[in-house]
Amino acid sequence: MEGFRFSTDVRVRFAETDAQRIAHNATYLVWFEVARVAYLDEFTAGYRAFQDAGYEATVVETHVRYLTPAVFDDVIRIWTRCLDVRGARFRYEYELVRVGDDARIAEGWTTHACVDAHTLRPTRLPQSIVDAIARAES
Amino acid sequence: MEGFRFSTDVRVRFAETDAQRIAHNATYLVWFEVARVAYLDEFTAGYRAFQDAGYEATVVETHVRYLTPAVFDDVIRIWTRCLDVRGARFRYEYELVRVGDDARIAEGWTTHACVDAHTLRPTRLPQSIVDAIARAES
Amino acid sequence: MEGFRFSTDVRVRFAETDAQRIAHNATYLVWFEVARVAYLDEFTAGYRAFQDAGYEATVVETHVRYLTPAVFDDVIRIWTRCLDVRGARFRYEYELVRVGDDARIAEGWTTHACVDAHTLRPTRLPQSIVDAIARAES
Amino acid sequence: MEGFRFSTDVRVRFAETDAQRIAHNATYLVWFEVARVAYLDEFTAGYRAFQDAGYEATVVETHVRYLTPAVFDDVIRIWTRCLDVRGARFRYEYELVRVGDDARIAEGWTTHACVDAHTLRPTRLPQSIVDAIARAES
Repeated sequence: MEGFRFSTDVRVRFAETDAQRIAHNATYLVWFEVARVAYLDEFTAGYRAFQDAGYEATVVETHVRYLTPAVFDDVIRIWTRCLDVRGARFRYEYELVRVGDDARIAEGWTTHACVDAHTLRPTRLPQSIVDAIARAES
Repeated sequence: MEGFRFSTDVRVRFAETDAQRIAHNATYLVWFEVARVAYLDEFTAGYRAFQDAGYEATVVETHVRYLTPAVFDDVIRIWTRCLDVRGARFRYEYELVRVGDDARIAEGWTTHACVDAHTLRPTRLPQSIVDAIARAES
Repeated sequence: MEGFRFSTDVRVRFAETDAQRIAHNATYLVWFEVARVAYLDEFTAGYRAFQDAGYEATVVETHVRYLTPAVFDDVIRIWTRCLDVRGARFRYEYELVRVGDDARIAEGWTTHACVDAHTLRPTRLPQSIVDAIARAES
Repeated sequence: MEGFRFSTDVRVRFAETDAQRIAHNATYLVWFEVARVAYLDEFTAGYRAFQDAGYEATVVETHVRYLTPAVFDDVIRIWTRCLDVRGARFRYEYELVRVGDDARIAEGWTTHACVDAHTLRPTRLPQSIVDAIARAES
């Protein structure tokens, strides 16, 4: 996918479908989160290490555009990139395509704030994370 | 809520919280859906009648801005309005406030297309629904 | 319902259905939890007060027998009782019937342990809760 | 795992945790389903082929015993076996252990009925599936 260097795959679970026989619209936000966690695993020490260091990432805004319905057992490749890292804020973008026929399933973005796990106040992303993301996306 | 004539309440379920001890970000899209169903119940014959008449509503786009975390057992009032009804397309807007302290929890919008349940092709919203929404929002 | 003194209603959400067009089997455990919370609200100071007093209830075992599929928008009455309160342990039983046609949707039970929220070690249920449950079920 | 020939792994998603900072009790039923689908993929033509042949499997009963809480990012190995195949009925058993420390996370079982997708009446499992399961478990 042009402009993306990382992807992770999910397979549509039966529990994620709804009575329209497609993946429910809320599920996409869960997949985005799975992709963020996989991204941090790939390029940093992972989200658990981030938490252990006293940070949490909160979700500020989410946006999804649904293009082609996904159905049970589809394998969805989630292309994921992190950008606009600025102080406490950062942004993820996602492109979802179905493995097999390359159908464009959805696109979306989410914005986040890094907070101190104890005070819950916004705090700059640790420099090691900023650097790791810069390397990953360069 | 200025500009809204309809609201419905949900109470944050324990299952809807996550390890940050707040309602998970994907849950908001489920609540939006609960609000749409309640809205159609109030102003039309309901979503089930809509389906029985051979229609489905698909979700085209969703957007959420998270303002104040909601926690277990909070009662959230979802102010809901439907607008921009045009052919097959329509749009819902939401304002979520916590009952008790009026904290602004989130705001969001979703866009939808009415489709024929059999062909899944976009089709104009039935005129009775268009009229009911116009009356509800006027 | 014979032998039950408390019930609460849930309405099947669209997000709770699956591609078999019925409420997904895991959803019933969420409904059981909703019923437990409502039960504690009715007969005690509520689960939040229980937590504030330094306790948590963990889930030890769950059992569901599915009798009639529930579909979107069905209103399900969850008959709920608490019994076998013994030290840290207690047990809930549930009977689910559909409002309207009284179809038996499911039955189930769950067992729980009261734990100290800090040590997570089992601890006797506070006597005030034990007494409240005894009064509720007598 | 003694007596099991098949396993599949899931990783605890953040969305699957709750405010007790552990995987929510209902999630285990979703994991069981993921394991059944993986099992059918391994030993038969898969659940989608089963559906395409005009069948559905319904869930009759579920049982979970929770042993050690699972937390975000834990990798859980779900040992899975299918037994008691008899006419339309069959039963799955599960043992969940955490990869890394082998902690026993949970155990459970589910029973199912094979139904005709159109009439929803119980119907014998196709012989090819019965044979495939017999081979898998022998």
